[in-house]
Amino acid sequence: MNTLELLNQHRSQRDFTTQPVSTETVSQLITTAQHASSSIFLQAYSFISITDPALRQQIAAITTMPFIQQNGHLLIVIADQHRNATLARQQGLTPELLGGADRFLASVEDATLASQNLITAAESLGLGTVVLGSVLNDAAKLIELLRLPKLTMPVFGLLVGYPNGQNELKPRLPEAAVHFTNGYQEPTTYTAALADYQQTLQQYYQARSHNARQADFTQVIRGALLSKTPRRELLSVLQQQGFLNEAN
Amino acid sequence: MNTLELLNQHRSQRDFTTQPVSTETVSQLITTAQHASSSIFLQAYSFISITDPALRQQIAAITTMPFIQQNGHLLIVIADQHRNATLARQQGLTPELLGGADRFLASVEDATLASQNLITAAESLGLGTVVLGSVLNDAAKLIELLRLPKLTMPVFGLLVGYPNGQNELKPRLPEAAVHFTNGYQEPTTYTAALADYQQTLQQYYQARSHNARQADFTQVIRGALLSKTPRRELLSVLQQQGFLNEAN
Repeated sequence: MNTLELLNQHRSQRDFTTQPVSTETVSQLITTAQHASSSIFLQAYSFISITDPALRQQIAAITTMPFIQQNGHLLIVIADQHRNATLARQQGLTPELLGGADRFLASVEDATLASQNLITAAESLGLGTVVLGSVLNDAAKLIELLRLPKLTMPVFGLLVGYPNGQNELKPRLPEAAVHFTNGYQEPTTYTAALADYQQTLQQYYQARSHNARQADFTQVIRGALLSKTPRRELLSVLQQQGFLNEAN
Repeated sequence: MNTLELLNQHRSQRDFTTQPVSTETVSQLITTAQHASSSIFLQAYSFISITDPALRQQIAAITTMPFIQQNGHLLIVIADQHRNATLARQQGLTPELLGGADRFLASVEDATLASQNLITAAESLGLGTVVLGSVLNDAAKLIELLRLPKLTMPVFGLLVGYPNGQNELKPRLPEAAVHFTNGYQEPTTYTAALADYQQTLQQYYQARSHNARQADFTQVIRGALLSKTPRRELLSVLQQQGFLNEAN
């Protein structure tokens, strides 16, 4: 499969075989992740491998997702300006700017660019992956468990393993809804394309082999707004970590 | 070249030939970008192609980077919860939660995962790319130029084109500095690996064929902290766009 086909075949994988991911393979994935671009080359991210079963169980409890307690290698991805701040202080520099909105977002973006590289690298080796936003259901607890210092913040988890079965491809929004020219376009300018998509997505949800249900894109949005874990405390957790304070 | 080799060969490309990137190729890149994962499937991002030369000139002026006025296809990547908020309102739902820290960060991450897919797809087709954080040097102006509504925010620009020459590979931090096990590790625990890296990076900066200079990783951090464009206004711009307000 060439690279374009590989990317176009991506689907999240939550069910893994018991085959472990070797330490060498994890290192290879991290190395490839690091080749992604980073903002002004600050490389402002870290990965934490979770190999301690008791710690993994505590993280799984935060997510409330039972599959996280099972197979696959668990990584927590960290937006990390602490390393840069420490190196700055060693040079007598004041690192407060690294906690501002600009450098905080750059660290989240660095972490995410690297993570997508890791996902693609994993899939090219026949592994499957899933991004776990649910590790933020109790961000303060996760920060405590991983002993995360100021100017670090968990972004999401990644579970990587050998796939047990395969999901269907999930249809994405039409290009008309996500690609504009020379300025933003309101959804009212692409209503027909959206209506087609609602039908396509409805068919996908009805026909899929796991968790088939009546739903369309409106239901996805409704689910987000009626979430049982709205994470309203996330801004204050970020501020406690030294990010996004007015003074930065 | 297989996918892993392709990812490990990544370097930013700022110099492009005059060969235009066809509309079909841009569509293909966007479609592949869309196959990345997105948080709870909200697909909270958009891409804006800049094809109007006058608009491009205004954006290039924000970046102060002369190469942006030259060749390649320019895209601005948008964290976009406006589309979802509009669809929510049409269903009588109150979309305020989409402006909170959790959904804002998820939209930045969605946009960034998709962008790394776009970069990899482009490189697999023989194109080169560069991520342009500098479009945020005047975020408020960019928002005005692109008529970006509430609950949208520019993340970065992407310039994609046919490469004119090739840069050297830039050495990344050692794995010991970015990959920990079961908890965060302070830089004091990997000082030897960091010292080696300082030497490696110094040699790279000295020997590279463009813009050779005396520098190491400490200089990179110093450059960030002494930036002429620290973008201290970014948090208030985000709040004006409806994001990260205490009420969300």
